[in-house]
Amino acid sequence: MKIEIAKSCGFCFGVKRAVQIASKHRGASTIGELIHNSQEIARLKDECGVKTLKNINELSGETAIIRTHGITKSDLATLKERGTKVIDATCPFVTKPQQIVEKMSAEGYEIIFFGDSEHPESKSVTSYANKVYIVSNADELEKLKLRNKVALISQTTKKLENFNKIAAALISKCKEVRVFNTICDATFKNQEACQELAKRADIMIVIGGKTSSNTKQLFYIASELCDAHHIENADELEPAWFKDKELCGITAGASTPEWIITQIIDKIKQITA
Amino acid sequence: MKIEIAKSCGFCFGVKRAVQIASKHRGASTIGELIHNSQEIARLKDECGVKTLKNINELSGETAIIRTHGITKSDLATLKERGTKVIDATCPFVTKPQQIVEKMSAEGYEIIFFGDSEHPESKSVTSYANKVYIVSNADELEKLKLRNKVALISQTTKKLENFNKIAAALISKCKEVRVFNTICDATFKNQEACQELAKRADIMIVIGGKTSSNTKQLFYIASELCDAHHIENADELEPAWFKDKELCGITAGASTPEWIITQIIDKIKQITA
Repeated sequence: MKIEIAKSCGFCFGVKRAVQIASKHRGASTIGELIHNSQEIARLKDECGVKTLKNINELSGETAIIRTHGITKSDLATLKERGTKVIDATCPFVTKPQQIVEKMSAEGYEIIFFGDSEHPESKSVTSYANKVYIVSNADELEKLKLRNKVALISQTTKKLENFNKIAAALISKCKEVRVFNTICDATFKNQEACQELAKRADIMIVIGGKTSSNTKQLFYIASELCDAHHIENADELEPAWFKDKELCGITAGASTPEWIITQIIDKIKQITA
Repeated sequence: MKIEIAKSCGFCFGVKRAVQIASKHRGASTIGELIHNSQEIARLKDECGVKTLKNINELSGETAIIRTHGITKSDLATLKERGTKVIDATCPFVTKPQQIVEKMSAEGYEIIFFGDSEHPESKSVTSYANKVYIVSNADELEKLKLRNKVALISQTTKKLENFNKIAAALISKCKEVRVFNTICDATFKNQEACQELAKRADIMIVIGGKTSSNTKQLFYIASELCDAHHIENADELEPAWFKDKELCGITAGASTPEWIITQIIDKIKQITA
């Protein structure tokens, strides 16, 4: 069986940057998981002495690292009030939508955020709004009574096609729709490369955290085109998956470190040898 | 054969208003056709003494009536410089996009106008822009090199579905797309009613000026659903069209006066009696 890695996959700019920042701050704590990959979080703890806290109330040290997805405006304010040293590892592509949401809210726009309401990025970005609706598809707009001026912003890891459907529904309902395409380029590229490979592959192994939004999107794209499996580590691989398969495609979410990808490929080679 | 008139058709708010304004100004001249209906233009001349000029240079009297579609910013400025008395019969739904285009241009947005470049409304609205691209479909955007901030505005008589396609293409290309849904409600309603009737009818007679954009849209909608004919007056009716037809639907563009619709229905009744 041949193994091929997608032309674009794995660590994105924001994740690379956050891991680099965190690894330089031994003894500091991140508020929530720095990135959506538990193995890398464990490595940061073991090798760099960076702990992961559930929320700001667990903080006892002086230095807090802000995760790639950002934290809420009020949490940030509380940390500053307490005199906590704040190291901002928020992805710049998340800081941008936070700023947009704050500015549009101040200008009187009602905010429509396309995202998963439970995702930390959604929570951090929408915390900058006065009035906001978080929607995961166009149908959810039907029941909303909107003003004539709305601003539409997306979670960075969403699919453009679905974002456009929401934009179209809003344009039918409102006089002015200010659309900010805040979907990340890296997300685009990984999705495109995944699609291209999945079309040719017999099986796709999608590697990444189970809570990672962008990994879930990759899995969704792959599973529409071939037999796909979403795993976090090599232990989850099942030999039966690879029976009679000729081409195995590999892709990984933006928070998946290279060392995990390598481990998994080695294990697949071993299984199919 | 049964004849049924679409639930919504004919004179819209802006046209009604313009005809009312013009008919009160005997001796005044309109710059271009007040509305896109040559029969009504002829009636205004004969009954109300309102002339139609090709452009501002033909103007010799003191009073100029601005047509429903508006005139260009520079023509308006010239008239004011010359001391011409200006009676503004521009449809308020056209004045609005003029203002939007001017404001967005001033704020540094590149303007994308969805319209027919030769239509007087397109000319009047886009004359308020610093930099503008007039496009008639999404494909035309491909060759454009756009800035990251664009504003999208529509000719009032366009189809929402096509407007949304252009919006989607822009959202893929630009970071911020400010979408102003300037499509007129009357246009929507007439199109919806036309579609509903054309689905049931065997033949649709679409009445309106041959240069009327909204009438052309109605004809397009009807012709996709049944045998449709776009006519301006009763003389164009052909008896052969109605052979073996059970239901004849009637619709009319926003500039078509009721007296023409009545004339045409009377003639159809006569033909099919």
